[in-house]
Amino acid sequence: MQVIDNLETIRAQASGWRLAGESICVVPTMGALHAGHMSLVEIARAHADRVVAWIFVNPKQFENPEDLAKYPSHMEADIAKLQAAGVDALYAPTPDQIYPEGFATTVSIAGVSEGLCGAGRPGHFDGVATVVTKIFTQTQADCATFGEKDYQQLQVVKRLVADLNLPIDILPCETVRETDGLALSSRNERLSDTDRAIAPALHGALQAASARLRDGEAPGPVIERAKAEIEAAGFTRVEYLELRAARDLAPFKDLDEPARLLVAAHLGKVRLIDNIPV
Amino acid sequence: MQVIDNLETIRAQASGWRLAGESICVVPTMGALHAGHMSLVEIARAHADRVVAWIFVNPKQFENPEDLAKYPSHMEADIAKLQAAGVDALYAPTPDQIYPEGFATTVSIAGVSEGLCGAGRPGHFDGVATVVTKIFTQTQADCATFGEKDYQQLQVVKRLVADLNLPIDILPCETVRETDGLALSSRNERLSDTDRAIAPALHGALQAASARLRDGEAPGPVIERAKAEIEAAGFTRVEYLELRAARDLAPFKDLDEPARLLVAAHLGKVRLIDNIPV
Repeated sequence: MQVIDNLETIRAQASGWRLAGESICVVPTMGALHAGHMSLVEIARAHADRVVAWIFVNPKQFENPEDLAKYPSHMEADIAKLQAAGVDALYAPTPDQIYPEGFATTVSIAGVSEGLCGAGRPGHFDGVATVVTKIFTQTQADCATFGEKDYQQLQVVKRLVADLNLPIDILPCETVRETDGLALSSRNERLSDTDRAIAPALHGALQAASARLRDGEAPGPVIERAKAEIEAAGFTRVEYLELRAARDLAPFKDLDEPARLLVAAHLGKVRLIDNIPV
Repeated sequence: MQVIDNLETIRAQASGWRLAGESICVVPTMGALHAGHMSLVEIARAHADRVVAWIFVNPKQFENPEDLAKYPSHMEADIAKLQAAGVDALYAPTPDQIYPEGFATTVSIAGVSEGLCGAGRPGHFDGVATVVTKIFTQTQADCATFGEKDYQQLQVVKRLVADLNLPIDILPCETVRETDGLALSSRNERLSDTDRAIAPALHGALQAASARLRDGEAPGPVIERAKAEIEAAGFTRVEYLELRAARDLAPFKDLDEPARLLVAAHLGKVRLIDNIPV
Protein backbone atom coordinates (compact mmCIF):
# COMPACT_ATOMS: atom_id res chain seq x y z
CA MET A 1 0.00 0.00 0.00
CA GLN A 2 1.31 3.43 -0.94
CA VAL A 3 1.15 6.11 1.73
CA ILE A 4 0.71 9.49 0.02
CA ASP A 5 0.70 12.90 1.69
CA ASN A 6 0.46 15.28 -1.27
CA LEU A 7 -2.00 16.16 -4.00
CA GLU A 8 0.42 15.80 -6.90
CA THR A 9 1.19 12.16 -6.09
CA ILE A 10 -2.41 11.07 -5.50
CA ARG A 11 -3.48 12.83 -8.71
CA ALA A 12 -0.75 11.07 -10.72
CA GLN A 13 -1.67 7.72 -9.18
CA ALA A 14 -5.39 8.21 -9.76
CA SER A 15 -4.83 9.34 -13.35
CA GLY A 16 -2.71 6.25 -13.99
CA TRP A 17 -5.45 3.96 -12.71
CA ARG A 18 -8.11 5.77 -14.71
CA LEU A 19 -6.09 5.63 -17.91
CA ALA A 20 -5.77 1.88 -17.35
CA GLY A 21 -9.56 1.68 -17.15
CA GLU A 22 -9.60 0.97 -13.43
CA SER A 23 -12.30 2.46 -11.19
CA ILE A 24 -11.51 4.09 -7.85
CA CYS A 25 -13.47 4.14 -4.60
CA VAL A 26 -12.46 6.54 -1.86
CA VAL A 27 -13.12 5.86 1.84
CA PRO A 28 -13.09 9.23 3.62
CA THR A 29 -12.15 9.00 7.30
CA MET A 30 -10.56 11.06 10.07
CA GLY A 31 -8.41 8.09 11.12
CA ALA A 32 -8.55 6.23 14.46
CA LEU A 33 -9.97 3.40 12.40
CA HIS A 34 -12.36 0.84 13.90
CA ALA A 35 -14.41 -2.03 12.50
CA GLY A 36 -16.97 0.44 11.16
CA HIS A 37 -14.36 2.05 8.95
CA MET A 38 -13.10 -1.36 7.87
CA SER A 39 -16.62 -2.29 6.74
CA LEU A 40 -16.50 0.80 4.51
CA VAL A 41 -13.23 -0.48 3.05
CA GLU A 42 -14.81 -3.86 2.29
CA ILE A 43 -17.75 -2.21 0.54
CA ALA A 44 -15.33 -0.03 -1.42
CA ARG A 45 -13.38 -3.10 -2.52
CA ALA A 46 -16.58 -4.73 -3.75
CA HIS A 47 -17.44 -1.69 -5.88
CA ALA A 48 -14.18 -0.59 -7.50
CA ASP A 49 -10.85 -1.86 -8.83
CA ARG A 50 -8.83 0.43 -6.58
CA VAL A 51 -9.47 1.60 -3.03
CA VAL A 52 -8.06 4.85 -1.67
CA ALA A 53 -8.41 5.43 2.07
CA TRP A 54 -8.46 9.09 3.08
CA ILE A 55 -7.32 10.21 6.54
CA PHE A 56 -7.55 13.89 7.39
CA VAL A 57 -8.75 15.41 10.64
CA ASN A 58 -10.50 18.40 9.09
CA PRO A 59 -10.26 21.42 11.40
CA LYS A 60 -13.07 23.21 9.55
CA GLN A 61 -15.66 20.70 10.73
CA PHE A 62 -14.77 21.03 14.40
CA GLU A 63 -16.64 23.96 15.92
CA ASN A 64 -15.21 22.98 19.33
CA PRO A 65 -11.39 23.33 19.66
CA GLU A 66 -11.33 20.85 22.60
CA ASP A 67 -13.10 18.20 20.51
CA LEU A 68 -10.52 18.74 17.75
CA ALA A 69 -7.57 18.57 20.16
CA LYS A 70 -8.87 15.37 21.76
CA TYR A 71 -9.79 13.64 18.51
CA PRO A 72 -7.86 10.35 18.61
CA SER A 73 -4.93 9.71 16.26
CA HIS A 74 -3.37 6.26 15.66
CA MET A 75 -1.65 6.58 12.30
CA GLU A 76 0.64 3.54 12.64
CA ALA A 77 -2.18 1.24 13.64
CA ASP A 78 -4.38 2.72 10.90
CA ILE A 79 -1.74 2.01 8.25
CA ALA A 80 -1.42 -1.60 9.42
CA LYS A 81 -5.20 -2.12 9.30
CA LEU A 82 -5.57 -0.61 5.83
CA GLN A 83 -2.64 -2.60 4.48
CA ALA A 84 -4.08 -5.82 5.87
CA ALA A 85 -7.42 -4.99 4.24
CA GLY A 86 -5.80 -4.68 0.81
CA VAL A 87 -6.22 -0.94 0.37
CA ASP A 88 -4.23 0.32 -2.64
CA ALA A 89 -3.31 3.74 -1.33
CA LEU A 90 -3.67 5.75 1.84
CA TYR A 91 -3.93 9.46 1.14
CA ALA A 92 -3.24 11.34 4.37
CA PRO A 93 -2.71 14.89 3.12
CA THR A 94 -0.76 17.46 5.08
CA PRO A 95 -3.01 20.43 5.97
CA ASP A 96 -1.43 22.68 3.32
CA GLN A 97 -2.55 20.23 0.62
CA ILE A 98 -6.15 20.86 1.64
CA TYR A 99 -6.08 24.49 2.79
CA PRO A 100 -3.18 26.25 1.05
CA GLU A 101 -2.43 29.90 1.77
CA GLY A 102 -5.26 32.15 0.64
CA PHE A 103 -7.89 29.39 0.73
CA ALA A 104 -11.25 31.21 0.74
CA THR A 105 -13.98 28.84 -0.44
CA THR A 106 -16.96 27.46 1.47
CA VAL A 107 -19.54 25.01 0.18
CA SER A 108 -22.82 25.27 2.10
CA ILE A 109 -25.90 23.07 1.91
CA ALA A 110 -29.14 24.60 3.17
CA GLY A 111 -32.11 22.57 4.39
CA VAL A 112 -30.76 19.11 5.14
CA SER A 113 -27.81 20.51 7.13
CA GLU A 114 -30.06 22.59 9.38
CA GLY A 115 -31.31 21.30 12.73
CA LEU A 116 -30.13 18.04 14.38
CA CYS A 117 -26.30 18.13 14.47
CA GLY A 118 -26.38 21.35 12.42
CA ALA A 119 -28.08 23.17 15.30
CA GLY A 120 -25.56 22.09 17.95
CA ARG A 121 -22.47 22.33 15.73
CA PRO A 122 -22.62 25.66 13.82
CA GLY A 123 -20.44 25.59 10.70
CA HIS A 124 -19.87 21.83 11.00
CA PHE A 125 -21.64 20.85 7.78
CA ASP A 126 -20.07 23.73 5.83
CA GLY A 127 -16.73 22.23 6.85
CA VAL A 128 -17.91 18.75 5.84
CA ALA A 129 -19.32 19.84 2.45
CA THR A 130 -16.19 21.84 1.61
CA VAL A 131 -13.70 19.09 2.44
CA VAL A 132 -15.85 16.36 0.88
CA THR A 133 -15.92 18.30 -2.40
CA LYS A 134 -12.12 18.37 -2.26
CA ILE A 135 -11.91 14.67 -1.37
CA PHE A 136 -13.80 13.94 -4.57
CA THR A 137 -11.86 16.32 -6.83
CA GLN A 138 -8.45 15.44 -5.38
CA THR A 139 -8.88 11.66 -5.65
CA GLN A 140 -10.95 11.67 -8.89
CA ALA A 141 -12.84 8.74 -7.40
CA ASP A 142 -15.78 7.04 -9.11
CA CYS A 143 -17.48 6.20 -5.84
CA ALA A 144 -17.20 6.97 -2.14
CA THR A 145 -18.41 5.23 1.01
CA PHE A 146 -20.21 7.05 3.82
CA GLY A 147 -21.50 5.39 7.00
CA GLU A 148 -25.13 5.70 8.07
CA LYS A 149 -23.79 6.32 11.59
CA ASP A 150 -23.42 9.95 10.46
CA TYR A 151 -26.84 9.91 8.84
CA GLN A 152 -27.27 13.65 8.45
CA GLN A 153 -23.77 13.91 6.96
CA LEU A 154 -24.72 11.20 4.45
CA GLN A 155 -27.79 13.20 3.38
CA VAL A 156 -25.72 16.41 3.15
CA VAL A 157 -23.20 14.63 0.92
CA LYS A 158 -25.94 13.19 -1.31
CA ARG A 159 -27.45 16.67 -1.73
CA LEU A 160 -23.98 18.12 -2.46
CA VAL A 161 -23.27 15.53 -5.16
CA ALA A 162 -26.67 16.04 -6.79
CA ASP A 163 -26.54 19.84 -6.65
CA LEU A 164 -22.98 20.28 -7.93
CA ASN A 165 -23.30 17.41 -10.45
CA LEU A 166 -20.19 15.79 -9.01
CA PRO A 167 -19.37 12.68 -11.07
CA ILE A 168 -19.31 10.23 -8.17
CA ASP A 169 -21.57 7.55 -6.70
CA ILE A 170 -22.25 7.63 -2.97
CA LEU A 171 -22.37 4.23 -1.27
CA PRO A 172 -24.21 4.38 2.06
CA CYS A 173 -22.99 1.77 4.57
CA GLU A 174 -24.91 0.39 7.55
CA THR A 175 -23.78 1.31 11.04
CA VAL A 176 -21.52 -1.28 12.68
CA ARG A 177 -22.24 -1.90 16.38
CA GLU A 178 -20.66 -3.52 19.41
CA THR A 179 -22.50 -6.65 20.60
CA ASP A 180 -24.28 -4.52 23.21
CA GLY A 181 -25.63 -2.20 20.48
CA LEU A 182 -23.27 0.78 20.89
CA ALA A 183 -22.50 2.25 17.46
CA LEU A 184 -18.78 2.15 16.71
CA SER A 185 -17.18 5.59 16.92
CA SER A 186 -13.64 6.86 17.32
CA ARG A 187 -14.97 8.91 20.23
CA ASN A 188 -15.96 5.77 22.18
CA GLU A 189 -12.36 5.32 23.34
CA ARG A 190 -12.69 8.56 25.30
CA LEU A 191 -15.44 7.01 27.49
CA SER A 192 -14.58 5.99 31.08
CA ASP A 193 -15.38 2.39 32.03
CA THR A 194 -18.49 3.56 33.88
CA ASP A 195 -19.68 5.63 30.91
CA ARG A 196 -18.89 2.81 28.48
CA ALA A 197 -21.34 0.66 30.44
CA ILE A 198 -24.00 3.37 30.21
CA ALA A 199 -23.47 4.15 26.49
CA PRO A 200 -25.49 1.28 24.93
CA ALA A 201 -28.63 2.78 26.51
CA LEU A 202 -28.63 5.25 23.61
CA HIS A 203 -29.26 2.55 21.03
CA GLY A 204 -31.57 0.72 23.41
CA ALA A 205 -33.81 3.78 23.77
CA LEU A 206 -33.92 4.24 19.96
CA GLN A 207 -34.89 0.59 19.46
CA ALA A 208 -37.66 0.78 22.04
CA ALA A 209 -38.97 4.04 20.55
CA SER A 210 -38.92 2.61 17.02
CA ALA A 211 -40.90 -0.41 18.18
CA ARG A 212 -43.47 1.79 19.92
CA LEU A 213 -43.88 3.96 16.83
CA ARG A 214 -44.41 0.89 14.67
CA ASP A 215 -47.02 -0.25 17.22
CA GLY A 216 -48.91 2.98 16.49
CA GLU A 217 -48.02 5.05 19.55
CA ALA A 218 -47.97 8.84 18.99
CA PRO A 219 -44.51 10.29 18.19
CA GLY A 220 -44.56 13.08 20.82
CA PRO A 221 -44.87 10.90 23.93
CA VAL A 222 -42.62 8.17 22.44
CA ILE A 223 -39.82 10.69 21.94
CA GLU A 224 -40.23 12.21 25.41
CA ARG A 225 -40.10 8.72 26.93
CA ALA A 226 -36.95 7.81 24.99
CA LYS A 227 -35.23 11.02 26.12
CA ALA A 228 -36.16 10.23 29.73
CA GLU A 229 -34.79 6.69 29.36
CA ILE A 230 -31.46 7.99 28.05
CA GLU A 231 -31.10 10.47 30.89
CA ALA A 232 -32.21 7.88 33.47
CA ALA A 233 -29.47 5.55 32.18
CA GLY A 234 -26.87 8.14 33.20
CA PHE A 235 -26.37 10.39 30.16
CA THR A 236 -25.61 14.01 31.08
CA ARG A 237 -27.89 15.58 28.47
CA VAL A 238 -29.89 14.71 25.37
CA GLU A 239 -28.98 17.31 22.74
CA TYR A 240 -31.72 16.19 20.37
CA LEU A 241 -33.87 13.15 19.69
CA GLU A 242 -36.02 13.58 16.61
CA LEU A 243 -38.12 11.69 14.13
CA ARG A 244 -37.53 12.78 10.53
CA ALA A 245 -38.24 11.67 6.97
CA ALA A 246 -35.47 9.20 6.11
CA ARG A 247 -35.02 10.48 2.56
CA ASP A 248 -34.29 14.16 3.16
CA LEU A 249 -34.63 14.67 6.94
CA ALA A 250 -37.76 16.78 6.39
CA PRO A 251 -40.06 17.04 9.44
CA PHE A 252 -41.86 13.74 10.05
CA LYS A 253 -45.39 13.52 8.65
CA ASP A 254 -46.50 9.89 8.79
CA LEU A 255 -45.16 6.37 8.65
CA ASP A 256 -46.23 5.86 5.04
CA GLU A 257 -42.76 7.04 4.07
CA PRO A 258 -39.54 5.68 5.58
CA ALA A 259 -38.66 7.55 8.75
CA ARG A 260 -35.54 7.78 10.86
CA LEU A 261 -34.99 8.37 14.58
CA LEU A 262 -31.85 10.41 15.24
CA VAL A 263 -30.21 11.26 18.53
CA ALA A 264 -27.23 13.14 19.97
CA ALA A 265 -26.49 12.90 23.68
CA HIS A 266 -23.66 13.85 25.98
CA LEU A 267 -22.03 11.36 28.35
CA GLY A 268 -19.54 13.24 30.52
CA LYS A 269 -17.42 15.19 28.03
CA VAL A 270 -18.14 12.85 25.14
CA ARG A 271 -20.87 13.57 22.60
CA LEU A 272 -22.38 10.45 21.03
CA ILE A 273 -24.75 10.21 18.07
CA ASP A 274 -26.85 7.37 16.72
CA ASN A 275 -29.83 6.76 14.45
CA ILE A 276 -32.04 3.90 13.30
CA PRO A 277 -34.80 3.36 10.77
CA VAL A 278 -38.39 3.27 12.00
CA MET B 1 -23.54 22.31 -34.25
CA GLN B 2 -25.64 20.41 -31.77
CA VAL B 3 -28.02 22.42 -29.60
CA ILE B 4 -28.44 20.65 -26.27
CA ASP B 5 -30.80 21.63 -23.46
CA ASN B 6 -30.29 18.82 -20.93
CA LEU B 7 -27.56 17.44 -18.73
CA GLU B 8 -27.85 13.83 -19.87
CA THR B 9 -27.13 14.70 -23.50
CA ILE B 10 -24.22 17.05 -22.83
CA ARG B 11 -22.69 14.49 -20.46
CA ALA B 12 -22.99 11.72 -23.05
CA GLN B 13 -21.48 13.96 -25.73
CA ALA B 14 -18.64 15.13 -23.49
CA SER B 15 -17.88 11.55 -22.37
CA GLY B 16 -17.75 10.45 -26.00
CA TRP B 17 -15.25 13.15 -26.86
CA ARG B 18 -13.14 12.39 -23.81
CA LEU B 19 -13.09 8.67 -24.55
CA ALA B 20 -11.87 9.54 -28.06
CA GLY B 21 -9.02 11.49 -26.45
CA GLU B 22 -10.42 14.89 -27.45
CA SER B 23 -10.13 17.88 -25.13
CA ILE B 24 -13.05 20.21 -24.43
CA CYS B 25 -13.14 23.94 -23.81
CA VAL B 26 -16.31 25.54 -22.48
CA VAL B 27 -17.23 29.17 -23.14
CA PRO B 28 -19.65 30.24 -20.38
CA THR B 29 -22.01 33.06 -21.42
CA MET B 30 -25.45 34.43 -20.65
CA GLY B 31 -26.21 34.78 -24.37
CA ALA B 32 -26.84 38.01 -26.30
CA LEU B 33 -23.49 37.29 -27.90
CA HIS B 34 -21.26 40.07 -29.18
CA ALA B 35 -17.72 40.21 -30.59
CA GLY B 36 -16.29 39.87 -27.07
CA HIS B 37 -17.94 36.49 -26.67
CA MET B 38 -16.81 35.45 -30.12
CA SER B 39 -13.20 36.23 -29.18
CA LEU B 40 -13.64 33.80 -26.28
CA VAL B 41 -14.83 31.18 -28.78
CA GLU B 42 -11.72 31.72 -30.92
CA ILE B 43 -9.44 31.34 -27.93
CA ALA B 44 -11.33 28.19 -26.92
CA ARG B 45 -10.87 26.73 -30.43
CA ALA B 46 -7.14 27.38 -30.21
CA HIS B 47 -6.89 25.50 -26.91
CA ALA B 48 -9.07 22.41 -27.31
CA ASP B 49 -10.35 19.88 -29.83
CA ARG B 50 -13.99 20.60 -29.03
CA VAL B 51 -15.72 23.84 -28.06
CA VAL B 52 -18.92 23.90 -26.04
CA ALA B 53 -20.69 27.25 -25.76
CA TRP B 54 -22.82 27.65 -22.63
CA ILE B 55 -25.82 29.98 -22.54
CA PHE B 56 -27.74 30.30 -19.30
CA VAL B 57 -29.07 33.47 -17.74
CA ASN B 58 -28.40 32.52 -14.16
CA PRO B 59 -31.06 34.00 -11.86
CA LYS B 60 -28.89 33.41 -8.78
CA GLN B 61 -26.34 36.00 -9.88
CA PHE B 62 -28.92 38.76 -10.36
CA GLU B 63 -29.58 40.51 -7.09
CA ASN B 64 -31.82 42.97 -8.97
CA PRO B 65 -35.01 41.44 -10.49
CA GLU B 66 -35.31 44.32 -13.00
CA ASP B 67 -31.78 43.72 -14.28
CA LEU B 68 -32.65 40.01 -14.71
CA ALA B 69 -35.95 40.77 -16.50
CA LYS B 70 -34.26 43.24 -18.87
CA TYR B 71 -31.22 41.07 -19.62
CA PRO B 72 -31.21 40.73 -23.44
CA SER B 73 -32.01 37.41 -25.13
CA HIS B 74 -31.32 36.67 -28.81
CA MET B 75 -31.16 32.89 -29.01
CA GLU B 76 -31.65 32.54 -32.78
CA ALA B 77 -28.95 35.06 -33.58
CA ASP B 78 -26.67 33.48 -30.96
CA ILE B 79 -27.07 30.03 -32.53
CA ALA B 80 -26.20 31.43 -35.98
CA LYS B 81 -23.07 33.16 -34.65
CA LEU B 82 -21.84 30.08 -32.78
CA GLN B 83 -22.49 27.82 -35.76
CA ALA B 84 -20.59 30.16 -38.07
CA ALA B 85 -17.70 30.17 -35.59
CA GLY B 86 -17.42 26.38 -35.72
CA VAL B 87 -18.61 25.66 -32.18
CA ASP B 88 -19.25 21.93 -31.69
CA ALA B 89 -22.15 22.15 -29.27
CA LEU B 90 -24.29 24.82 -27.67
CA TYR B 91 -25.48 23.79 -24.22
CA ALA B 92 -28.37 26.03 -23.24
CA PRO B 93 -29.81 24.18 -20.26
CA THR B 94 -33.39 24.62 -19.12
CA PRO B 95 -33.47 26.04 -15.57
CA ASP B 96 -34.44 22.65 -14.05
CA GLN B 97 -31.19 21.17 -15.38
CA ILE B 98 -29.27 23.66 -13.26
CA TYR B 99 -31.53 24.11 -10.24
CA PRO B 100 -33.69 20.98 -9.87
CA GLU B 101 -36.28 20.75 -7.12
CA GLY B 102 -34.66 20.76 -3.71
CA PHE B 103 -31.47 22.46 -4.88
CA ALA B 104 -29.79 23.75 -1.72
CA THR B 105 -26.07 24.31 -2.37
CA THR B 106 -24.10 27.55 -2.37
CA VAL B 107 -20.41 27.96 -3.17
CA SER B 108 -18.98 31.12 -1.59
CA ILE B 109 -15.57 32.69 -2.07
CA ALA B 110 -14.43 35.08 0.67
CA GLY B 111 -11.83 37.81 0.14
CA VAL B 112 -11.63 38.33 -3.59
CA SER B 113 -15.42 38.52 -3.96
CA GLU B 114 -15.74 41.23 -1.33
CA GLY B 115 -15.81 44.92 -2.23
CA LEU B 116 -16.00 46.29 -5.80
CA CYS B 117 -18.96 44.57 -7.53
CA GLY B 118 -19.40 42.35 -4.45
CA ALA B 119 -20.31 45.40 -2.36
CA GLY B 120 -22.96 46.71 -4.76
CA ARG B 121 -24.35 43.30 -5.77
CA PRO B 122 -24.83 41.24 -2.59
CA GLY B 123 -24.98 37.51 -3.34
CA HIS B 124 -23.83 38.03 -6.93
CA PHE B 125 -20.53 36.18 -6.64
CA ASP B 126 -22.10 33.33 -4.63
CA GLY B 127 -24.40 32.89 -7.63
CA VAL B 128 -21.46 33.05 -10.01
CA ALA B 129 -19.30 30.58 -8.04
CA THR B 130 -22.17 28.12 -7.67
CA VAL B 131 -23.16 28.08 -11.34
CA VAL B 132 -19.56 28.10 -12.56
CA THR B 133 -18.85 24.99 -10.48
CA LYS B 134 -21.80 23.35 -12.23
CA ILE B 135 -20.67 24.56 -15.67
CA PHE B 136 -17.40 22.73 -15.07
CA THR B 137 -18.89 19.53 -13.66
CA GLN B 138 -21.74 19.35 -16.18
CA THR B 139 -19.55 19.83 -19.26
CA GLN B 140 -16.47 17.96 -17.95
CA ALA B 141 -14.40 20.57 -19.78
CA ASP B 142 -10.58 20.67 -19.70
CA CYS B 143 -10.48 24.44 -19.98
CA ALA B 144 -12.80 27.42 -19.83
CA THR B 145 -12.58 30.99 -21.12
CA PHE B 146 -13.40 34.03 -18.99
CA GLY B 147 -13.18 37.63 -20.17
CA GLU B 148 -11.12 40.23 -18.33
CA LYS B 149 -14.08 42.59 -18.78
CA ASP B 150 -15.47 40.89 -15.64
CA TYR B 151 -12.13 41.08 -13.91
CA GLN B 152 -13.33 40.39 -10.38
CA GLN B 153 -15.36 37.43 -11.63
CA LEU B 154 -12.21 36.07 -13.29
CA GLN B 155 -10.33 36.27 -9.99
CA VAL B 156 -13.23 34.65 -8.12
CA VAL B 157 -13.25 31.78 -10.64
CA LYS B 158 -9.47 31.30 -10.38
CA ARG B 159 -9.74 31.14 -6.57
CA LEU B 160 -12.67 28.69 -6.84
CA VAL B 161 -10.73 26.37 -9.16
CA ALA B 162 -7.64 26.44 -6.94
CA ASP B 163 -9.56 25.97 -3.70
CA LEU B 164 -11.83 23.13 -4.85
CA ASN B 165 -9.08 21.49 -6.96
CA LEU B 166 -11.35 21.53 -9.99
CA PRO B 167 -9.56 19.78 -12.88
CA ILE B 168 -9.85 22.66 -15.36
CA ASP B 169 -7.62 25.39 -16.79
CA ILE B 170 -8.91 28.95 -16.80
CA LEU B 171 -8.06 30.98 -19.91
CA PRO B 172 -8.34 34.73 -19.27
CA CYS B 173 -9.24 36.74 -22.39
CA GLU B 174 -8.60 40.43 -23.03
CA THR B 175 -11.54 42.82 -23.12
CA VAL B 176 -12.83 43.58 -26.61
CA ARG B 177 -13.76 47.24 -27.21
CA GLU B 178 -15.64 49.37 -29.69
CA THR B 179 -13.39 51.71 -31.70
CA ASP B 180 -14.29 54.52 -29.27
CA GLY B 181 -13.04 52.42 -26.32
CA LEU B 182 -16.36 51.25 -24.85
CA ALA B 183 -15.97 47.69 -23.55
CA LEU B 184 -18.36 45.32 -25.32
CA SER B 185 -21.24 44.26 -23.07
CA SER B 186 -24.67 42.78 -23.65
CA ARG B 187 -25.99 45.64 -21.53
CA ASN B 188 -24.75 48.28 -24.03
CA GLU B 189 -27.80 47.68 -26.23
CA ARG B 190 -29.96 49.06 -23.42
CA LEU B 191 -28.25 52.48 -23.72
CA SER B 192 -30.12 55.34 -25.38
CA ASP B 193 -28.33 57.07 -28.28
CA THR B 194 -27.41 59.95 -26.00
CA ASP B 195 -26.04 57.62 -23.31
CA ARG B 196 -24.22 55.52 -25.90
CA ALA B 197 -22.30 58.71 -26.86
CA ILE B 198 -21.45 59.34 -23.19
CA ALA B 199 -20.43 55.74 -22.37
CA PRO B 200 -16.85 55.75 -23.80
CA ALA B 201 -15.93 58.37 -21.17
CA LEU B 202 -15.69 55.47 -18.72
CA HIS B 203 -12.75 53.90 -20.51
CA GLY B 204 -11.30 57.34 -21.28
CA ALA B 205 -11.20 58.24 -17.59
CA LEU B 206 -9.51 54.92 -16.75
CA GLN B 207 -6.87 55.44 -19.41
CA ALA B 208 -6.12 58.97 -18.23
CA ALA B 209 -5.91 57.80 -14.62
CA SER B 210 -3.62 54.90 -15.52
CA ALA B 211 -1.28 57.29 -17.37
CA ARG B 212 -1.20 59.69 -14.40
CA LEU B 213 -0.41 56.85 -12.00
CA ARG B 214 2.42 55.65 -14.21
CA ASP B 215 3.69 59.25 -14.25
CA GLY B 216 3.98 59.04 -10.46
CA GLU B 217 0.91 61.00 -9.38
CA ALA B 218 -0.58 59.95 -6.03
CA PRO B 219 -3.47 57.43 -6.28
CA GLY B 220 -5.96 59.32 -4.09
CA PRO B 221 -6.21 62.50 -6.18
CA VAL B 222 -5.95 60.55 -9.46
CA ILE B 223 -8.96 58.45 -8.51
CA GLU B 224 -11.01 61.44 -7.36
CA ARG B 225 -10.24 63.24 -10.61
CA ALA B 226 -11.26 60.20 -12.71
CA LYS B 227 -14.57 59.93 -10.81
CA ALA B 228 -15.22 63.62 -11.44
CA GLU B 229 -14.46 63.18 -15.15
CA ILE B 230 -16.93 60.28 -15.43
CA GLU B 231 -19.68 62.25 -13.73
CA ALA B 232 -18.89 65.38 -15.74
CA ALA B 233 -19.26 63.32 -18.94
CA GLY B 234 -22.89 62.62 -17.99
CA PHE B 235 -22.83 59.40 -15.93
CA THR B 236 -25.51 59.33 -13.22
CA ARG B 237 -23.27 57.89 -10.51
CA VAL B 238 -19.88 56.26 -10.01
CA GLU B 239 -20.50 53.16 -7.86
CA TYR B 240 -16.80 52.53 -7.31
CA LEU B 241 -13.48 53.37 -8.91
CA GLU B 242 -10.61 51.61 -7.19
CA LEU B 243 -6.98 50.69 -7.61
CA ARG B 244 -6.21 47.12 -6.56
CA ALA B 245 -3.46 44.51 -6.84
CA ALA B 246 -4.02 42.79 -10.21
CA ARG B 247 -3.25 39.31 -8.92
CA ASP B 248 -5.77 38.97 -6.10
CA LEU B 249 -7.54 42.36 -5.88
CA ALA B 250 -5.90 43.04 -2.51
CA PRO B 251 -5.72 46.74 -1.53
CA PHE B 252 -3.15 48.58 -3.64
CA LYS B 253 0.27 49.01 -2.06
CA ASP B 254 2.69 50.19 -4.74
CA LEU B 255 3.36 49.96 -8.45
CA ASP B 256 6.11 47.37 -8.01
CA GLU B 257 3.43 44.73 -8.48
CA PRO B 258 0.91 44.75 -11.34
CA ALA B 259 -2.12 46.85 -10.44
CA ARG B 260 -5.59 47.20 -11.91
CA LEU B 261 -8.02 50.10 -12.03
CA LEU B 262 -11.63 48.93 -11.78
CA VAL B 263 -14.83 50.93 -12.16
CA ALA B 264 -18.61 50.52 -12.04
CA ALA B 265 -20.81 53.45 -12.99
CA HIS B 266 -24.48 54.00 -13.72
CA LEU B 267 -25.69 55.66 -16.91
CA GLY B 268 -29.44 56.13 -16.65
CA LYS B 269 -30.75 52.70 -15.66
CA VAL B 270 -27.77 50.82 -17.09
CA ARG B 271 -24.84 49.79 -14.93
CA LEU B 272 -21.53 49.56 -16.80
CA ILE B 273 -18.22 48.13 -15.57
CA ASP B 274 -14.70 48.33 -16.96
CA ASN B 275 -11.10 47.83 -15.85
CA ILE B 276 -7.60 48.26 -17.23
CA PRO B 277 -4.04 47.41 -16.14
CA VAL B 278 -1.91 50.16 -14.65
